[in-house]
Amino acid sequence: MSSHSAPPGPAYRRLSVEERRGQLLATARHLFAHRPPEAVSLDDVARQAGVSRPLVYRYFPGGKQQLYEATLHGAAEALRDCFVEPRSGPPRRRLTEVLDRYLAFVDEHAEGFTALLKGGSVAETSRTSSIVDGVRRAAAEELLHHLDRPHPGVRLRMAVRTWITAVEAASLIWLDEQREPPLPELRDWLVDHFLALLAVTAERDAETAEVVRAMAEREPAGSAP
Amino acid sequence: MSSHSAPPGPAYRRLSVEERRGQLLATARHLFAHRPPEAVSLDDVARQAGVSRPLVYRYFPGGKQQLYEATLHGAAEALRDCFVEPRSGPPRRRLTEVLDRYLAFVDEHAEGFTALLKGGSVAETSRTSSIVDGVRRAAAEELLHHLDRPHPGVRLRMAVRTWITAVEAASLIWLDEQREPPLPELRDWLVDHFLALLAVTAERDAETAEVVRAMAEREPAGSAP
Repeated sequence: MSSHSAPPGPAYRRLSVEERRGQLLATARHLFAHRPPEAVSLDDVARQAGVSRPLVYRYFPGGKQQLYEATLHGAAEALRDCFVEPRSGPPRRRLTEVLDRYLAFVDEHAEGFTALLKGGSVAETSRTSSIVDGVRRAAAEELLHHLDRPHPGVRLRMAVRTWITAVEAASLIWLDEQREPPLPELRDWLVDHFLALLAVTAERDAETAEVVRAMAEREPAGSAP
Repeated sequence: MSSHSAPPGPAYRRLSVEERRGQLLATARHLFAHRPPEAVSLDDVARQAGVSRPLVYRYFPGGKQQLYEATLHGAAEALRDCFVEPRSGPPRRRLTEVLDRYLAFVDEHAEGFTALLKGGSVAETSRTSSIVDGVRRAAAEELLHHLDRPHPGVRLRMAVRTWITAVEAASLIWLDEQREPPLPELRDWLVDHFLALLAVTAERDAETAEVVRAMAEREPAGSAP
């Protein structure tokens, strides 16, 4: 991460309540993105923000866990933003754009992303799990809207939910594999994976077969199947 | 679960140390299979085994967490056993047999399986996560041995690891969807998913292309692609 993304300045700056809260959150987000939650202390946050420990507590009386969860809410929002894509144009290109943004997020928040999704962290609770589940649900809903099937049957829904988990798993594996293969190849592989899973599902589900047909019609002539 | 699978008998039976330990583990496994770990207390284990609370502590000084982890080790072993399949015959049939055993395990241990894999449980620690990771690793190794690629390149390894997570996710989704679609359909869909993912991977990886070719040669003539 480049240095200009470090959280803003020294303690003596006068900040409004909102600004100070935002500064502490930015600091926490920066720290939690680059280390597992166990390796971040409230003192780290205070030091890096250039403020005292009691000041951090004044804004976040729940201490580190509260900061972690607030950070997670921010990250969840950023992830949801990744999924927003105009509902026009070839479906393959739309999926490619969304995955580009998602994978850039993974790339940038590697440590925190890994710790969160791998589980077993002491900072993990049913609350943090439900934030993560909310992001998965939002991804599934967005994808189903693009397929013009906001209320799918069980087979299409299962295909979409399974693929979303597969994307998440592949992202973790990619980080674990020293970021191999290159990001554009990973992205195209994930897109192809989705189309292949839909094709397999279409063999036993009329609704999915209809979705596959409608998608093919929206691709430019002569493009890959 | 049928009643004969309930753990054995009343307190006054004289059991050897090994028998008693086994009985407590069987009791714990039964309880943890049917409820999330939060909903199981040491008293439940003692009551159901027909012994006193101190006796449970004598065998498991670490209390509920130790019992939970011991149970998990047992479940992990049982899961590894599911994966063992003779390395001969058509690959599709082998995969089908393994998935049948795995999905039967999921079906029988639904509550515990769900709680464990969904995360966010208070009983979850880096130790329990590493037991689960060990099962995933064993599954990947076994599968790669069947593909005659014990030391695969990054692309084939990623395809196999991603599919294993997808199977796990689909199992959780299946439980969440009131066990729909029927188990044999889910199983065949997972097999087809694997073959489709290999085909997609083969498009950009010579090693995987070779694996796909070798698998096709081992299928009986006239079978589905």
